[in-house]
Formats: sequence, C-alpha cells, structure tokens
Amino acid sequence: MPLQPHMKLISVDDHIIEPPDLWTSRLPTAHLDAGPRVIEVDGAVTTEIGAAATAAGTQMWTFEGQPFPNIALNAVAGKSHEEFGLEPVRFDQIRPGCYDPAERVKDMDIDGVQAQLGFPTFPGFAGRVFATAKDKELALLCVRAYNDFILDEWCGPHPDRLIPMVILPLWDAELAAAELRRTAERGAKAVAFPENPAGLDLPSFHSGGWDPLLAVAEEAGTPLCMHFGTSTRMPFVAADAPFPVTIALMGTNSINTLSELLFSPIFHAFPRLKVTLAEGGVGWIPWFLERIDLTWERHRFYNDVNKEVRPSALFRRNVWGCFIDDTPGLLLRDVIGVDRITWEGDYPHSDSSWPHSRKRAGEAFVDVPDADVHRIVELNARELLSFDADLHG
Amino acid sequence: MPLQPHMKLISVDDHIIEPPDLWTSRLPTAHLDAGPRVIEVDGAVTTEIGAAATAAGTQMWTFEGQPFPNIALNAVAGKSHEEFGLEPVRFDQIRPGCYDPAERVKDMDIDGVQAQLGFPTFPGFAGRVFATAKDKELALLCVRAYNDFILDEWCGPHPDRLIPMVILPLWDAELAAAELRRTAERGAKAVAFPENPAGLDLPSFHSGGWDPLLAVAEEAGTPLCMHFGTSTRMPFVAADAPFPVTIALMGTNSINTLSELLFSPIFHAFPRLKVTLAEGGVGWIPWFLERIDLTWERHRFYNDVNKEVRPSALFRRNVWGCFIDDTPGLLLRDVIGVDRITWEGDYPHSDSSWPHSRKRAGEAFVDVPDADVHRIVELNARELLSFDADLHG
Repeated sequence: MPLQPHMKLISVDDHIIEPPDLWTSRLPTAHLDAGPRVIEVDGAVTTEIGAAATAAGTQMWTFEGQPFPNIALNAVAGKSHEEFGLEPVRFDQIRPGCYDPAERVKDMDIDGVQAQLGFPTFPGFAGRVFATAKDKELALLCVRAYNDFILDEWCGPHPDRLIPMVILPLWDAELAAAELRRTAERGAKAVAFPENPAGLDLPSFHSGGWDPLLAVAEEAGTPLCMHFGTSTRMPFVAADAPFPVTIALMGTNSINTLSELLFSPIFHAFPRLKVTLAEGGVGWIPWFLERIDLTWERHRFYNDVNKEVRPSALFRRNVWGCFIDDTPGLLLRDVIGVDRITWEGDYPHSDSSWPHSRKRAGEAFVDVPDADVHRIVELNARELLSFDADLHG
Repeated sequence: MPLQPHMKLISVDDHIIEPPDLWTSRLPTAHLDAGPRVIEVDGAVTTEIGAAATAAGTQMWTFEGQPFPNIALNAVAGKSHEEFGLEPVRFDQIRPGCYDPAERVKDMDIDGVQAQLGFPTFPGFAGRVFATAKDKELALLCVRAYNDFILDEWCGPHPDRLIPMVILPLWDAELAAAELRRTAERGAKAVAFPENPAGLDLPSFHSGGWDPLLAVAEEAGTPLCMHFGTSTRMPFVAADAPFPVTIALMGTNSINTLSELLFSPIFHAFPRLKVTLAEGGVGWIPWFLERIDLTWERHRFYNDVNKEVRPSALFRRNVWGCFIDDTPGLLLRDVIGVDRITWEGDYPHSDSSWPHSRKRAGEAFVDVPDADVHRIVELNARELLSFDADLHG
C-alpha cells in the first residue's frame, strides 16, 4: 500500500499559461499598447531569438513592440507522444486547464492532484522578460499585475488547490524585496527566482547584491523556487546535435545552481532561507553532494569559501529537490534526505504524466515505506510552502 | 574481505607530465625552435589565455612561439590539502614520478596500483593544442613524437605497469585514422579523444566526420578515452564564483558527452566501438540513463534520432565510466551495470588519493561483494584495454 488514499499529491512545479487579458485588464490605459498582449500574426516575424515564419492564424504575445513566438511553450497535456513537436500557436489549440483556473482544478481532479504551484510562461519561468524591459515603470506594473492575477484570480477562488507563487522586479533588489513583502502579506507562499541570476547579467549569488530580498524571503519563510532554464544558459551541445540531447541535459542546470549556492555566502548569511530546485530531478544529488564535499575538503584553503561548514550540510538544511520520474533518487532517498524530496506534476509540459500522475506516482512508490511516501508527496511540500488551506473546512 | 590481495588495481585515468626533452630529442632540427620546448621565464608573459606575471625562475612550455603557463597542471601528488592552490612552476618542484616512468612505477608501488593509463598534459588531455597549430606538418610530427615517446620510452620498459594511450592529429580524420592504425600496430591500447569535438570547432559526433577514425578504433578494439575538460567548454558559472564551484561541476561535462553520444549515429554505425568517460564519476549515471530514456520515449518521433534502440542500451554496450570516490555509484552499481564501471587513480592530480589509493579503495569497497570488486578494480579494465601484459611471466 505505498501511495495510500489519504495521502494527497501536492505538486511543487507546474506551469500557468497566462490568459490573453491578464495584463490588458490590469494595466493603466497609457500602457496598454506597450504592455503584454496577444496579437494575431500571419507571415514572417522577427523575434528576440531570430526570424520565424508563422502559419496563418498564429497568436503571439507582444511586449514593448517585440513579438514572443510561443503562447504556450510546451503545453502538450493530453497529447500522445507521437503528437509532440510543434508548439501550439493558438489558445484554442490547448486545453483550457492551461489558462483557466477553474478548468485547471478539474484537470487536477482527473490527475489525482490535490494542490499545485505554477510558474509563469510568457515572462519566463522566473519573470526574466520584465527585467529586460526598456520601460522599468511599465515593467514594475507588469510584475504587480501578474502577481495580483495569481493572488486574486488564479489562486483566490481555489485556496485549497492552487498555491500562489509570485515573480519579482529582478532588476532592483530593493524593489524585489518590497514586492515580496507586499505579496507575502497578501498570501503568496513562494517566489520564482532565476536558477542563476548571473546568466541574466544580474548580480550573482556570490555578490551580496540580493541581500535585501533574501532577508525578506527568510523572514517571511518564502522559498525561492529555481526552475531549470531560468538562467537562459543552456547546456553546451554541438550546433548540429538533435534537440533531445539538450532536453535530457536540462537537469544539469540544477546541478550548476546547487554548486553556486552551496559555495556562496547566501546560506551562511541567511541560515533559514529556503530554496527549491524545480524539474531537475533528485537522482544526481547523492553523487553531487559527495563530489562537492570532496571538492570543499581539498580546495577550501586557497579559495574564498566558508571553511567550517560542509556544503552537504547546507543542502540538508536549506534546499529541496523535486522529481516526476526518478527511480535512482527514490532508491537513494535516505542519502539525499527524505525531508529534502518533493513531488511535481509539471502540467501541462511534456514531462507531465497527466492524466495519469497519481497512477504513475503509485507505481514509482511501490517499494517505498508509507511514511516516506507521505513525506515526499505531501508533508514536505506543506512544510516548505506553509500550505494547509485545504485542511480547514 | 572486499579488496583482496589477489585483486590488482588497474587505473584508467592518470596523467603524464611530459619530460622537457620529449620533443627536442625527437623532432627534426629544422622544427626544434617552433616545436614544444621548455623555457626559463622571468617577468611578464602573454599566453593564449591572457597576460600573467611570473615569478623569477619560472619554467614554461612554448610551442610555435606561444608560451603555456603550466608545466605541470595540478601535479600535487604528495602535498597536503593545505598546500593546494599554486601550480608548480619548475620541474624540480614536482615529484619525479610525474615525468619519469621508472619513478612513476615506484610511486605506483607505494600506492598499491598494478597498472595505469596516462593522459598527456601540455598538449591538453586529448592533444588539442596540436590541432590548433599553424604549421600542421610540425603538428603531425609532434603528435607522432608524443606517441613514440609513450610507446618506446614511457610504456616500453614497463609493459606490465604502464598502458599505452596515444593522441591523434585531430584536424584530419583520415590522418587520425592512419595514426591510430600505426600506433595500434605498435601496441597502443587506448586513444585520448575530446569529450566533445564540437567544443574545439571540430566535427561533432553527429556529423559523420569521424567515421574513418571510428572504423579503425572499432576494428582495432581501441577505446576512445574522453576526459572531462577536453572540449575546453567549462560549466557555466558566475564570473565571480569561487573556483570550487567549477571544480565540483566538472563531472557534468561527462553527462553532456554521454547525452551527445547516445543520441548520435556513432554507436549505430559502429556497434563494437568502445568509449570511456574519464574522471566524471559514475554516481549520476542511473539518474541520467532514466532521464535520457524518458526523453527518447517522448521526443524521438519528431527528431532525427534512432527510433528503435533505447539510449541506455547503447550505454550498456559501448560506454564505460570510472571513479575515484563514488559511494552512490557503488550503491547503484547494478543499475549502472557492474561491467560498465572501472577505477581510476588520477595521479598526480588533486583528486588522487596517492599514496593511499589502495587503502582508500579498500574502504570504498567494504560492502561490495568480492566478484563485483574484482570486476570494477581489475577485470573490466583488462577487457576494455585488452591488457594482460603483467600476467605473462
């Protein structure tokens, strides 16, 4: 009886496709043209990542006059694997659960998922796009509008099912601290943050530049959720490598993140700070913790790193991982720490098992003792996110 | 009795520091000035990686007029961890076992190692430097001189202890094939090859550009040994990250290599080809094989990859890993495949446990059954390298 009926699945990594009116219904009139909105495109367009031909009837986001080619990056929930490949180009090509919270909850019911935490899509999984905006006044309004949407419209009617994660004005750590304080007071339970801000030409984890934000996150108990890919630095592969080479490697970005974090001053300066690594899996963690401790043992004396605390001890106090499918990670759960492991559903992306998440999780946990299963699928996420709204009638 | 006296340690990853006269004693007189030689430097020099001030009495390699700042990259065998940090700048600052084969064998006796396989140092672990030479006639002479040194001087007098690994003229796959054929006929047991040739602006694993070489390697049964770092692409880290962030991450380069290889046409075109991943550890392999198989299951239909054979099946037929310290890898040895795992000593680098390698291996194997220990420390390497010279009186 590994995954028992009373154990609820709480997912710490899913994805929200922003509805077309998210910003147009919230921004002041003067900003409506430059702000994010969905346009109909027919023909060739030039985007931030190059020129692309579009099919007739393509919908795209535009922001400050720049087109963004995917309305629904990887929204494949419900498709067979043979149908994977082409990104949907119109909202009517994806499940309403991608962008409608009431429909999302229905899809979670089908999937056997009690509650979930959703990352943004069009602005990047950590809100990166707004940090590159030319008009930072507009960008700040956009960040706040997204967060108000999450708090009021996405999660507000479903406090027992949809857990609010907000984004930040990443271009200014003081502004970011203020926005986290504002939204935490309004009920935000988590905040999306880049897996490596240095990849976005923002201050690194080593710089001290995030201290105002980290102080608020620690004080509020709000985990920084770092999804792979949010540094925009992809693993190095040959230019002619087929795309699956990169897909399989994306989890290595989370290894980079963990190496940066555990050798940074962050967890020494903010000992109660919580960080999650999203979508990178956990099966590599035992190998990496041994490796980083050996590196620390041999190389700490001539480098500017903490000399007293083993990196693995920081991991076991400050960092959480999550997984969808990870047999090796479950086999070595005691080495990782059962309290470090959470579960994710990844709806509506290609790694998701929707609508079979609960069935698949049951199979994965077949040899895991009840207490460990309960920790991993539910109790760890509740503690991490201070989430218990569904337990109060 | 995990590591029993009759089990011999055979290391598949160590490092040769080239003696100062390796090329000057072998190149034709006309090439002596441009060829690799050791110079005395006192003051500032400009190298391929930037300007550097040098201490009085520094020795450096020079090739085609370019200085190379480290004579003995990471040659720290015998130093305490507190002494790590400064590269030695003179041959008389490193153990003679770094560059003298008779002294190397003595150091192996102290370390309890029966036989080892050494990568080059000054030309890069895969001979990269010669591929960037302006004078390719000189470069080819340099490659052949290195290989003759390995066959005649390094391994020749110690066929039972030092296993010959050669390098290739990487700028031309036909030349490389010819040099591998020449040296295999002279007794070469392995060949160093870049972990990702695309990182050196050479043809990728996907290009078909290496087919002449791979045909010879398959026919001769000579494994391509891919040491991490030989693509010269380092893991992405913040510019102000302390150096241990990168050291701990170097093994992720081997993950990149495996993803490229398993989604390439190479093992389908050359089903008996052997590849080793050097110094990347093995503890991440169970996680990555599950991940790459899931990627293949979901994304093979719309990509130019083989549709019939799971990537993990190719790993279990064509690839070998190795480790120095890897508790998780040993715990999951059956998932990796006990026949895929070899041992390395890494003399004289900072990961080495010299002079305690045999003692440390004994501790690592304390819970591993005899038959598995014997496979991992000795028998797999013998089969991989067709090495049995020490078994014939």
